[in-house]
Amino acid sequence: MTEISRVKGTKDYILEEMEKINYIIEKVKETFERFGFRQMDTPALESWDILSKKGVGGSDILEETFRFKDKSNNEIGLRYDLTVPLARVIALNKNLPLPFKRYQIAKVWRYGDVSKGRLREFYQADIDIVGSSSLLADAEVLACASEALKRLHIDFLIRINSRRILFSMMKSARIEKEKMLEVIRAIDKLEKIGEDSVKDELKKIKIEEKSIDKIFDFIKMDFDSIALEGREEIENLIDYLDGFGIKNFKIDLSLARGLDYYTSVIFEIIAKKEGKLGSIAGGGRYDNLIELFAGKKIPATGISLGIDRIAEIIDRFPKKSLIYVALTSDKVLKKGFEIIKMLRDNGINVDFDLMKRKLAKQLEYANSLKIEFVIIVGEEDLKNNEVTLRNMVTGEEKKIKIENLIEELKQILSNKLI
Amino acid sequence: MTEISRVKGTKDYILEEMEKINYIIEKVKETFERFGFRQMDTPALESWDILSKKGVGGSDILEETFRFKDKSNNEIGLRYDLTVPLARVIALNKNLPLPFKRYQIAKVWRYGDVSKGRLREFYQADIDIVGSSSLLADAEVLACASEALKRLHIDFLIRINSRRILFSMMKSARIEKEKMLEVIRAIDKLEKIGEDSVKDELKKIKIEEKSIDKIFDFIKMDFDSIALEGREEIENLIDYLDGFGIKNFKIDLSLARGLDYYTSVIFEIIAKKEGKLGSIAGGGRYDNLIELFAGKKIPATGISLGIDRIAEIIDRFPKKSLIYVALTSDKVLKKGFEIIKMLRDNGINVDFDLMKRKLAKQLEYANSLKIEFVIIVGEEDLKNNEVTLRNMVTGEEKKIKIENLIEELKQILSNKLI
Repeated sequence: MTEISRVKGTKDYILEEMEKINYIIEKVKETFERFGFRQMDTPALESWDILSKKGVGGSDILEETFRFKDKSNNEIGLRYDLTVPLARVIALNKNLPLPFKRYQIAKVWRYGDVSKGRLREFYQADIDIVGSSSLLADAEVLACASEALKRLHIDFLIRINSRRILFSMMKSARIEKEKMLEVIRAIDKLEKIGEDSVKDELKKIKIEEKSIDKIFDFIKMDFDSIALEGREEIENLIDYLDGFGIKNFKIDLSLARGLDYYTSVIFEIIAKKEGKLGSIAGGGRYDNLIELFAGKKIPATGISLGIDRIAEIIDRFPKKSLIYVALTSDKVLKKGFEIIKMLRDNGINVDFDLMKRKLAKQLEYANSLKIEFVIIVGEEDLKNNEVTLRNMVTGEEKKIKIENLIEELKQILSNKLI
Repeated sequence: MTEISRVKGTKDYILEEMEKINYIIEKVKETFERFGFRQMDTPALESWDILSKKGVGGSDILEETFRFKDKSNNEIGLRYDLTVPLARVIALNKNLPLPFKRYQIAKVWRYGDVSKGRLREFYQADIDIVGSSSLLADAEVLACASEALKRLHIDFLIRINSRRILFSMMKSARIEKEKMLEVIRAIDKLEKIGEDSVKDELKKIKIEEKSIDKIFDFIKMDFDSIALEGREEIENLIDYLDGFGIKNFKIDLSLARGLDYYTSVIFEIIAKKEGKLGSIAGGGRYDNLIELFAGKKIPATGISLGIDRIAEIIDRFPKKSLIYVALTSDKVLKKGFEIIKMLRDNGINVDFDLMKRKLAKQLEYANSLKIEFVIIVGEEDLKNNEVTLRNMVTGEEKKIKIENLIEELKQILSNKLI
């Protein structure tokens, strides 16, 4: 017999887990719209030519990209991020008013190491501003991401650096231009694999020992003590962040980011989970990426929130209410259906028995769904134009006139909202 | 240079088109929750073993399925529907309380003929009830789908048939059991390819001329005039639909549905688009599918709404409001940021200039985004604690005290809601 299993590294989101993801997505979406970002959606499938173009993602990410040929022998890849598809869309839609502020919440695919708990299909929520080279755009992106996280009650810190500073630093460490992106990709792994392994990687790509030492001296330095090209843009960004009232950030010269396309300021948001700090968002400015597709320089900046990472650090979230209507016999079916329809028409989420089970079984089922309130429709009650409302947690029961049911339920449910 | 293009048969949803999809998804989602369905999400990637199992989708759909090997040589497919993944989830989660009512709104992939306007990646919105064999479950599914379409102001008709009737009919037409599913797949194409082509297909799989004639006589018959096995379940369903107040359905003996897994009642919802009737939803009961994965018989029924098809027939939909704040000089930046933050904190969607452009350019930009209301923050106005509200459609302007701004905007925006 066939083994019934999920594809490795993928996930089914069901019940509470799905509700949590949904809660996060709804909050994030609402915040993105509050900041004037407009939703966009692109296909999971992108042509391999787009994803693999030089200067786009780089070799590390391509190594992890799902790739195949379709029936017409076209080379296809599953998107590894939402930024590259955005750049393609900008290239194909020359008449979009700029700046274009877009958000996209969708899955991306990366063939990562599952033994390290990495998912191969996961959610990202991206905001990007295309067409403005002002650091004000970067500040707006960070302000929006911060607001979304605040509304999710997450305690976080923004790390900020600039690729321009890293490039200047590498220049002064006499690293050849051709190797700079490789060095950046190695530094990006610092927190995952540690200093010694990063040094090994750098040796492998033939960076001299002296240069390696210089790099490590540098990335441990304090921002205030450096005077390199790229300083100004960070100072500029800090000013705007101040204007937006954002204080929980630090400049961290060891921040590198893994993707090739970043050009200047880069950021990462970290949050505490079980005592350890982990990355929940990352992004930065990519002023050259769109040009690769559009043939014309269009500056852009953005950030990507890892929805699954955020879900890992959220413990409690408000549940959506669901009322269960128990129909005690076939004789109350007609009136029961009317009551169900009335409740639903008035915006109340309602489930009921689809198996013609006995009342006790129905209450058991409602319990297994963790439903808090059950309305029992019984023959006797109906004679008085009443139903019984049962609180499944306390066991309390109360008769309610059908004409007052909507009002009473709305009252009860609004008290339940967090 | 690389050609910059989308993968054939895929779509970017941007601006108004995305807003329409989003509007449909939000309405549909809300309705699904109203009926007690709980959201679920599964990976796009499913193992080929699951998708291709005998009795699951059948050869026609597998012909259209994206299939490839991952880096570890595992055979993977992109899901062609949301029902098969649900069946796998049920098999892997034996402790789910039954009946399990779930909804899922997500993309599916089918390598269809793009010359016929078919998309290869598109949205489906599915509701299914797992674990109840009562026709009440089928009625609940249809009631929920109907309510969603009603709330989208779509004029529709539900076609209903039963696979059991089709099987009885084929039996009396002396069609071998092994060929029955092939015959059903041929009949399913009736509206797409016409009677002659269906007859040709039936001849190709060696169905005798006499049997073919019998089939066509039969599927044109009136439901009331037939007396075959499967009649009763349809009558039962009609009773429940009556209880739910659903009247816009007809029994249509030519309805077949293309997927192998359906076992008894099947349905399709059609709606008018540019004078022509087209299918916007389809589903039915599949009492044997889950057993293929779970090793235990678990009845189920469901329906799938084609979100892209629905989008094609919706012309008008309410737009979300967006306010633009124009900052006239660097001197108003600080106060301007405060106003922007105040509006956003009060639930109003706000965009502003990220390019430090002149006022005229800012208004031009707001116009290109089809924004209706702009708040102009000017030095002179600020001295009186005022801003100017400009209606971009009429050109009218009005001074508003900052302390009254929220209230006035909420008033204006609530009048705009449809």
